[in-house]
Amino acid sequence: MKKDFLTVNDFTKEELTDIIRLSVAIKKSISSGYNPPLMKGMTLGMIFQQSSTRTRCSFETAMEQLGGHAQYLGPGMIQLGGHETIEDTGRVLSGLMDIVMARVIEHKTVVSLADACTIPVINAMSDYTHPTQAIADVITMMEHLPAGKRFEDCKIVFTGDGTQVCASLGFICSKLGAHFVHYGPKSAQLNEDHKKILEENCRLSGGTWEVTDDRSAVKGADFIYTDVWYGLYENEMPKDERVKLFGDYQVNRDMMQLGNLGCKFLHCLPCTRGEDVTDEVADSAASLCWEEAWNRLTAMRGLLVYFTREKKQFSEIARAAAKAELESVLDSMGIAH
Amino acid sequence: MKKDFLTVNDFTKEELTDIIRLSVAIKKSISSGYNPPLMKGMTLGMIFQQSSTRTRCSFETAMEQLGGHAQYLGPGMIQLGGHETIEDTGRVLSGLMDIVMARVIEHKTVVSLADACTIPVINAMSDYTHPTQAIADVITMMEHLPAGKRFEDCKIVFTGDGTQVCASLGFICSKLGAHFVHYGPKSAQLNEDHKKILEENCRLSGGTWEVTDDRSAVKGADFIYTDVWYGLYENEMPKDERVKLFGDYQVNRDMMQLGNLGCKFLHCLPCTRGEDVTDEVADSAASLCWEEAWNRLTAMRGLLVYFTREKKQFSEIARAAAKAELESVLDSMGIAH
Amino acid sequence: MKKDFLTVNDFTKEELTDIIRLSVAIKKSISSGYNPPLMKGMTLGMIFQQSSTRTRCSFETAMEQLGGHAQYLGPGMIQLGGHETIEDTGRVLSGLMDIVMARVIEHKTVVSLADACTIPVINAMSDYTHPTQAIADVITMMEHLPAGKRFEDCKIVFTGDGTQVCASLGFICSKLGAHFVHYGPKSAQLNEDHKKILEENCRLSGGTWEVTDDRSAVKGADFIYTDVWYGLYENEMPKDERVKLFGDYQVNRDMMQLGNLGCKFLHCLPCTRGEDVTDEVADSAASLCWEEAWNRLTAMRGLLVYFTREKKQFSEIARAAAKAELESVLDSMGIAH
Repeated sequence: MKKDFLTVNDFTKEELTDIIRLSVAIKKSISSGYNPPLMKGMTLGMIFQQSSTRTRCSFETAMEQLGGHAQYLGPGMIQLGGHETIEDTGRVLSGLMDIVMARVIEHKTVVSLADACTIPVINAMSDYTHPTQAIADVITMMEHLPAGKRFEDCKIVFTGDGTQVCASLGFICSKLGAHFVHYGPKSAQLNEDHKKILEENCRLSGGTWEVTDDRSAVKGADFIYTDVWYGLYENEMPKDERVKLFGDYQVNRDMMQLGNLGCKFLHCLPCTRGEDVTDEVADSAASLCWEEAWNRLTAMRGLLVYFTREKKQFSEIARAAAKAELESVLDSMGIAH
Repeated sequence: MKKDFLTVNDFTKEELTDIIRLSVAIKKSISSGYNPPLMKGMTLGMIFQQSSTRTRCSFETAMEQLGGHAQYLGPGMIQLGGHETIEDTGRVLSGLMDIVMARVIEHKTVVSLADACTIPVINAMSDYTHPTQAIADVITMMEHLPAGKRFEDCKIVFTGDGTQVCASLGFICSKLGAHFVHYGPKSAQLNEDHKKILEENCRLSGGTWEVTDDRSAVKGADFIYTDVWYGLYENEMPKDERVKLFGDYQVNRDMMQLGNLGCKFLHCLPCTRGEDVTDEVADSAASLCWEEAWNRLTAMRGLLVYFTREKKQFSEIARAAAKAELESVLDSMGIAH
Repeated sequence: MKKDFLTVNDFTKEELTDIIRLSVAIKKSISSGYNPPLMKGMTLGMIFQQSSTRTRCSFETAMEQLGGHAQYLGPGMIQLGGHETIEDTGRVLSGLMDIVMARVIEHKTVVSLADACTIPVINAMSDYTHPTQAIADVITMMEHLPAGKRFEDCKIVFTGDGTQVCASLGFICSKLGAHFVHYGPKSAQLNEDHKKILEENCRLSGGTWEVTDDRSAVKGADFIYTDVWYGLYENEMPKDERVKLFGDYQVNRDMMQLGNLGCKFLHCLPCTRGEDVTDEVADSAASLCWEEAWNRLTAMRGLLVYFTREKKQFSEIARAAAKAELESVLDSMGIAH
């Protein structure tokens, strides 16, 4: 049975921990000079309904480093949702590649695609959630834990707009048993559906969650995270509105000083310097946002290997027999091999 | 001498049979675990003047599975027909890659490109013909022959608009000696030029052909095939017009029941559900349209290997000498290898 | 320390000679059957702000032939200069790939990108200079030197508009000690900044330079080179204006006869046949413009290897240890390898 990666909430703490462990092990291997050919001969379809830097480049590099290949299927390049329904496209792609990722405008699109595909589908960001980002975020935090603390002991504060990145971060922190806070203005906070999930996740994991506009909730943070203020690309909030709404939630020196000593800064990027974060913080020694971007590659490699791990295996004997049989056909047609 | 694949009519029955046999042999090999590196080190240029799902994805996956690489040269990405003539672009590409495919709006574009290129050119659909589709179609039918019949014994009925897909299907069926019918309204039937080719092909192969608007011609079909009703993407027929013109030609339960017991349904896809085919037929056990789409990959692999089979061969000694000579240059410059 | 390839003027004659020597050695190796895996596991990011045929295809083919992979990041595909500053994009890409090339509208963009990246950046053409073209040009001329002459003995005349291609050609010829002439109308000649560089380059190399609208300067040319007349794609000069301004500078039979016996024709392409060059010349035996286009691939391979030559090396022992460690993690999770 194929499994999709649409939201971290479909997975147990143990499964998420496996994905993270696998990602970290492959990163270590490649940085030591061994690129494991775990995606050899496999093709990833990358469906993008929007432009993307980190997701696009990290998925494509990941496939190549692991011996496979990624096809960029950008806006308008294929007939998805134009001359063909999502369902029919999904069914067709299932026979032409091994795994698909989709960056979509509406979450229901990636859900329909996953339903239609018989190959695994990875949600590469929807308006609801950004689960590959969440894996990269946790890996980055785990690489920079405060002395003597486990991830479960950490307080992670997301400040500002309750975007899909905020939601994913809350989901994975609560899944893994850490302490999550969304500090944002009432009109832009995580909603009741999000809160129900956070509650359920924490009940199982022992984590805690809080959604508030009370600035004192930032105190004691080990990690402070933010995202842009303009919302979805399709419907951006004008600059004066968003600055008025989110101005108090900027990550600056004052905000960082509310955190624990050594508190670190994260951002999914792109950031709007001077709005959601000051240059001083983004470029400081406390800033992990660049390593976090690079860990998108770490996460993609782990996810690709994890979700294709049920691929058919062949014995050496079967492979040798197939080779011999093909070569006799090639020979009969005078084709060199 | 390089050879292009512009229309199946440029090839004998024996050559087409070789292409099919090669395609099927590679499919079997890959499904048994052996990906033959028959395109190793080679590059396919994929020129698209339109968006495409099946052709794009199947060519790109084919190249990667065979050890090569495909470059996606989409609308506006290169200067073909903009700052540069087709002829000059073809000449330039000939020195930068090994084989080219082109999906073009007008057939004469791919003909000019083939004339200009010293490397093989594959027609990946023009307004005149769709020969890679035809290869996939025949492979799919051969995998699902009625009990006791050879392909030559089969009756293949194309219903509806006489598109380039209808033409290619007619061409290959008549080339291979099968029995082809185009059942369509007079204003949208294959034309006199098509008919001359069908006649000539059948004369050599022993096949038969018929172009008619008489519904009784569907009787006894082993395969019923259709395509969309809107025509070319550049100039689509409005919905009310096309439904009026083609409504009687829809593939539905009634139409399928005119065929032989066990009659199968094909469609090049994308389909317009509720127009050219009902959901019931498209999603039934009689529907081969999904396997047909996946066999695009089967066909592309065979075509790529077939049309590059004259590539230069090198002895192991020549290769070893080249390696040694290059490495002495690299050593002299302190470059690791 | 990473080094960028923004203009040939940042390099000594010896360094440029090494790049050329390396390019030629790799060309020879590949044409003898040995594709050296010198870019194995590496990824090139290809940023294009404009459409491109030669640069795009040659870079992508080069990476594949050398065992690596190129990502096409076309206009609008990534967030460069949209939601993200060039500086931030450069920093992010540095952790997701190994080397970047950029075809930019304004030269300052590629300079900023190079400043931001910790990986090498190759200028794949800006409004100021086109250095990868210059390498291909020199390789092509060196493959067709007049009998008994060294490159340093040759007279190279660029006729027409003083484009970025004209500038690069002047830069590399003067760097290498050859004799360079720009023959063009006063309003479209290389400017004072260019001339200062030509003078400084010649002072070191022993070459000569001249910028003039005196037709007699073409006499004795070994190579005559031209470019299109319409200027930058973003702001093309109307046909009647450009024909009036540059009409006398067309490369035709008369112009070619001013050169030495056996004088060769070059053009970076695309050309506008009937404007900057006649069909007769472009398609003559004296025309090197096609080989020059194919040598873009020669140059790209050499440049890619040269600018990544400082990549980290790993011992076989380190690699084997990394492999063993990863495989134990994979085994613990039941993942085949």
